Amino acid sequence: MITSLNTADFANMDQRYRAAFFNSLGGFKSLTLVGTINSEGNTNLSVVSSVFHIGANPPLIGMIFRPESAERHTLDNIMDAGFYTFNHVKKEFYQQAHQTSARYDKSVSEFDTCGLQPWYSENMKAPYVLESNIRLGIKFAQRIDLTINGTVMVLGEIIETFFPTDCLEIDGFVNLEKAGTITVSGLDSYHTTQLLARLPYAKP
Amino acid sequence: MITSLNTADFANMDQRYRAAFFNSLGGFKSLTLVGTINSEGNTNLSVVSSVFHIGANPPLIGMIFRPESAERHTLDNIMDAGFYTFNHVKKEFYQQAHQTSARYDKSVSEFDTCGLQPWYSENMKAPYVLESNIRLGIKFAQRIDLTINGTVMVLGEIIETFFPTDCLEIDGFVNLEKAGTITVSGLDSYHTTQLLARLPYAKP
Repeated sequence: MITSLNTADFANMDQRYRAAFFNSLGGFKSLTLVGTINSEGNTNLSVVSSVFHIGANPPLIGMIFRPESAERHTLDNIMDAGFYTFNHVKKEFYQQAHQTSARYDKSVSEFDTCGLQPWYSENMKAPYVLESNIRLGIKFAQRIDLTINGTVMVLGEIIETFFPTDCLEIDGFVNLEKAGTITVSGLDSYHTTQLLARLPYAKP
Repeated sequence: MITSLNTADFANMDQRYRAAFFNSLGGFKSLTLVGTINSEGNTNLSVVSSVFHIGANPPLIGMIFRPESAERHTLDNIMDAGFYTFNHVKKEFYQQAHQTSARYDKSVSEFDTCGLQPWYSENMKAPYVLESNIRLGIKFAQRIDLTINGTVMVLGEIIETFFPTDCLEIDGFVNLEKAGTITVSGLDSYHTTQLLARLPYAKP
């Protein structure tokens, strides 16, 4: 049986119900721990599902911040420091990753409270997650305020990356499933993946 | 062993290698067939991995178009008609979905050439994909040209949706895995999912 819902139905939904509903409908999403540091040296870690690819040359990656949310500390830190990190999540620590979504006080580092370890590269002030398999070091590029609903889009340039050597394939593809990266649906549903196939470049 | 690459390495990559590389690094992505129609009544179908959630109230969803790509027919049609559809992809027809990424002539409908069937709701001019499990009817809301790299972001409002009744859970979560929705990594790697768990709302 198929359910059909429209704008009038959406308006009648409870706020939390509606958030769960529309966060599901977009499909499976990337799962990323964002590592930041502010000018006082306080670190912050926030799990997000709003990261998306913007372009490869230059390598640009975007994320969306809600108007009022736990991860606004992350936005403050990005605007402050100009650098941040994206860290893929594995099944071995997805519960710790999820815990970073709690509304901790700004003075609290989620690295300490959630049981994940910071790691620093030579060229990046912002902290990476040691437990993470694939890590991206990002330089802030542009902030775009989406007036349509008050969300904020942040675009950044990937300036360095760390990943398991045996996951890089000959054509540049990085095998996320082999690396253990997981995916998320809705606000709180975590999933591993199972390869169907890689398909060749499609021609008419 | 861990490989470390930075901006200088990225600059030395071949264009296709770099595209495969950075399309992988963002993590798993949503997989969507976008259905459109132009003013002459020609339909178009295009597979994309650039759809992302923007907000639930109003229900807004975004996608990115590359400067020059097969799916630019889709962008033209969206700007022309003002309405379009998003359709989740299942493993039963992911090869047909992939085939829509070939550079067909504008007069060709990918519904015909790729073996997928159009389906129309009462209130939406743009075609849905009959084979799809979860379908979203969308009204164009805003176009944002990203001057940083020439890509185009299109924001739309979800005005109707169709999904299997037994996949809607009591809190508004739609169970994509149960519905058979699949995910994509890189440009061409397709994956089913395996639930780890849904986790409760995190508190400090």
